[in-house]
Amino acid sequence: MPEFNPFFSDLRDRIEARDTVVSVGLDADLDRIPEHLLERDLPRWAFNRRIIDATHEYAACYKPNVAFYEDADGWRSLRETVAYAHGKDVPILLDAKRADIGNTARKYAELLEYADAITVNPYMGRDSLSPFLSRREKGVFVLCRTSNPGGADLQDLELESGEPLYRRVAALADLWNDAGNVGLVVGATTPDELEELRGEVPDLPFLVPGVGAQGGDAEAAVEFGLAHGVGLVNSSRGIIFADVEGSDGFATAAGRAAKRLRDRLNRHR
Amino acid sequence: MPEFNPFFSDLRDRIEARDTVVSVGLDADLDRIPEHLLERDLPRWAFNRRIIDATHEYAACYKPNVAFYEDADGWRSLRETVAYAHGKDVPILLDAKRADIGNTARKYAELLEYADAITVNPYMGRDSLSPFLSRREKGVFVLCRTSNPGGADLQDLELESGEPLYRRVAALADLWNDAGNVGLVVGATTPDELEELRGEVPDLPFLVPGVGAQGGDAEAAVEFGLAHGVGLVNSSRGIIFADVEGSDGFATAAGRAAKRLRDRLNRHR
Repeated sequence: MPEFNPFFSDLRDRIEARDTVVSVGLDADLDRIPEHLLERDLPRWAFNRRIIDATHEYAACYKPNVAFYEDADGWRSLRETVAYAHGKDVPILLDAKRADIGNTARKYAELLEYADAITVNPYMGRDSLSPFLSRREKGVFVLCRTSNPGGADLQDLELESGEPLYRRVAALADLWNDAGNVGLVVGATTPDELEELRGEVPDLPFLVPGVGAQGGDAEAAVEFGLAHGVGLVNSSRGIIFADVEGSDGFATAAGRAAKRLRDRLNRHR
Repeated sequence: MPEFNPFFSDLRDRIEARDTVVSVGLDADLDRIPEHLLERDLPRWAFNRRIIDATHEYAACYKPNVAFYEDADGWRSLRETVAYAHGKDVPILLDAKRADIGNTARKYAELLEYADAITVNPYMGRDSLSPFLSRREKGVFVLCRTSNPGGADLQDLELESGEPLYRRVAALADLWNDAGNVGLVVGATTPDELEELRGEVPDLPFLVPGVGAQGGDAEAAVEFGLAHGVGLVNSSRGIIFADVEGSDGFATAAGRAAKRLRDRLNRHR
């Protein structure tokens, strides 16, 4: 196996020092953030700053989903958020699920100028991910088995060789891991698949979404999601919108939810 | 077959009225647009406006790749570009290649607020595309067989049923086409596959990239890319950066290149 690259080594250090594998998903949906923040210049940044203040001691990383920032103010909010998280010494995994041909993928890879890691979509194959993979110091999480109902539509298709497509994707991602910079996205809603995949690619850290708002099995996420102690279990809405009332207490509620998830996951580590 | 929805009916009307199936890719790469435009407030918008002025009579649609606009100024440039193209009565196909789970995909689908159609990635399955598909009046082009070298890595994998994955994706997209709003992205670098796919899904219009800078077979693109006369053949850099000197004549050169491609394609229609 290749050694972990700087992103994964730093993540390992942080996981050990802070004793947490929680990824906090910063899906700052303008339709859901508290009303009193909407008058701010950059409401999503105001929201994220308060969430980061309340949760950073329980966070192994922050995972903003780029979908929630795709407009002019959104990009500014995202940049401020990244800088603030870095100020608290927490890495940023951009959930972008990108892939594209040659010069276009190079453009998308610029997202890694300011983030520490990114999620990518494997459907277009290796060269569509090369501009990400060639950032050898960053982390690249390849979508493998996703936790949504339609995840099965393509990912579970049986190949001529007898294996489902997602297992082949895991094997390909392992091949693409020259630099020790590759991980997989594997949903927690399918614990058997988590176990099976862990056997197939013992050295790739998993990002396990689907714990929290989507349900999912925390025990399996921790037992099989970590490779040599490194991996991430994400919750987005379950943390940042823990206080559905949206009162002044939303940040406190987020902090409590992040701590609760950390403790729940640590019971299985 | 479902009737074409409003997007595809309008596209058919435009293709007939203007006698063109050319999609002009607006990949406004800041590293390549003429230097004298870089001093403008929004250089990409200044560039696109001149390109649109010079090419709109040869364009069946404009296809901005979102990768080139993913920053605060970029989003403003993209919005101005969309409004201007609409002013010239040319539809916008956003090349975004998106897909995500539930509430996140709904967020991405907001991209369709101002565009007429979008490209999406099928790896996460039907529900990850539902927010796009449910915009029944818009166009949704599903990535099927892409023209990049790595396109084969997943798309050509042979399924237990004996067909390659991309053919199953075509069949799924056809199933998802309740509203007559679905098309496929099929690269021109694989003419045999274009022919085979046209036989499999006779009613889905194709967007065929890969003519121009990527090479590709114009004859096959036109012969098999159109469904009932509707389809698009894209060139991006081959048109917008036709004048590599970047002198004042870049727009004129783009207009000439667009006209040349239209004429070349029309010889096979």
